[in-house]
Amino acid sequence: MAVKCNCPGCNDKLCLHKVPIFSSLDHDELVKIRPMIHHREYKKGDTIIFEGDIIDSIVIINEGSVKAYKNTSDGREQILYVFSEGDFFGEQNLFGNQVSTYSVEALEKVKTCNLSREMFQKLLYTYPEISVKIIDELGNRISRLENALSIGVRNVDNRIGWILLEFADKYGTADEAGIIIHLPFSREGIANYLGIARETLSRKFSQLENEGLIKSLNNKEILIPDLGKIAEIAGNS
Amino acid sequence: MAVKCNCPGCNDKLCLHKVPIFSSLDHDELVKIRPMIHHREYKKGDTIIFEGDIIDSIVIINEGSVKAYKNTSDGREQILYVFSEGDFFGEQNLFGNQVSTYSVEALEKVKTCNLSREMFQKLLYTYPEISVKIIDELGNRISRLENALSIGVRNVDNRIGWILLEFADKYGTADEAGIIIHLPFSREGIANYLGIARETLSRKFSQLENEGLIKSLNNKEILIPDLGKIAEIAGNS
Repeated sequence: MAVKCNCPGCNDKLCLHKVPIFSSLDHDELVKIRPMIHHREYKKGDTIIFEGDIIDSIVIINEGSVKAYKNTSDGREQILYVFSEGDFFGEQNLFGNQVSTYSVEALEKVKTCNLSREMFQKLLYTYPEISVKIIDELGNRISRLENALSIGVRNVDNRIGWILLEFADKYGTADEAGIIIHLPFSREGIANYLGIARETLSRKFSQLENEGLIKSLNNKEILIPDLGKIAEIAGNS
Repeated sequence: MAVKCNCPGCNDKLCLHKVPIFSSLDHDELVKIRPMIHHREYKKGDTIIFEGDIIDSIVIINEGSVKAYKNTSDGREQILYVFSEGDFFGEQNLFGNQVSTYSVEALEKVKTCNLSREMFQKLLYTYPEISVKIIDELGNRISRLENALSIGVRNVDNRIGWILLEFADKYGTADEAGIIIHLPFSREGIANYLGIARETLSRKFSQLENEGLIKSLNNKEILIPDLGKIAEIAGNS
């Protein structure tokens, strides 16, 4: 059902319709929630939240994608998540007087729907199904972090194989020649995500390319002819 | 309020009273939930769940403590959590047909209260405050994993400092001479938790002891005279 509405940040449709955590609510319920939403827009490279800032809203990505990262004590940027359309963050700060545990930066033009902490808490009590969806999504995020942690000390090949599998799952499209991955960030970003030096990543990518396991189509796209071979490298087979 | 009840696994009180996620419910509500609970007992070393098992309950620790771990592809045991009285696991398996993402082993004699997936889902819809508490706890768990991930590639000294801080927070008691940490598992377990070799941990512990920063009281207890110095090692200061 395409719904016309007056919310200017939403490309003429109820942005809440896009959001999995609100998907069980019907149109009338969504219309009730709409006035509580504040819209924000960001340019590529804008910082939406700094690690350590007090955050008093839940932020839902309506358009575009962001990276969430921590600055480590040795000056690296450890990327924790890439959030895109329908994802949310700030839920960790709903119950304590917590500050944001990570910084969030727009990877492209981004539009968000922000819901204040107070309003969001009220929603959870009124619509238990929203909580159930959030628990489900947080469970997925926890599984992902657990996996990342348990591969953390494996060798670099394992880690690169693992991230290619993750990207293929999240950002891949099937093609006759294999899976085309639309990389969510730069090579430097990928190196940071993996916690390895950029030079190491470049060397390993060249090696995989020489072996025919990946093919760089352009700066933003990689082709994987045989995902099974990547799974072998990741140690998942 | 101490409550007498007939539940044999509960040391003569309603085990649910101990559990933070149920703390907002009153006694009458808890009495309604009680018949849905199944009790289990485990000996030290028993495996409660194997990674990959189908899990159809939420499991609440009523007594004792457990470790949750993954077997990595290189044959190591990566400890993810230590759960003790009042903690729960299995919540990740409530909504999909998921299998357990980790194994859980009793670190001592353990009693659990198990609630089936179906009953637990019903509870979440009936008592939204339970969901809100679970979201809060999952948020804490996520913060912890994010921290572990972002220190993962730091040097070994940082990691050891970090785990001592974490243990001091979770298992420490204040004493005239400093903070006494009651270690939740063996040195080998700690090494696995950190993803380092046992020999490395022993060497580093000896070094810290020589510098007067820690003192091994016995196999299970460590004294930290000055937590500030440990924070410096962790890179948090």
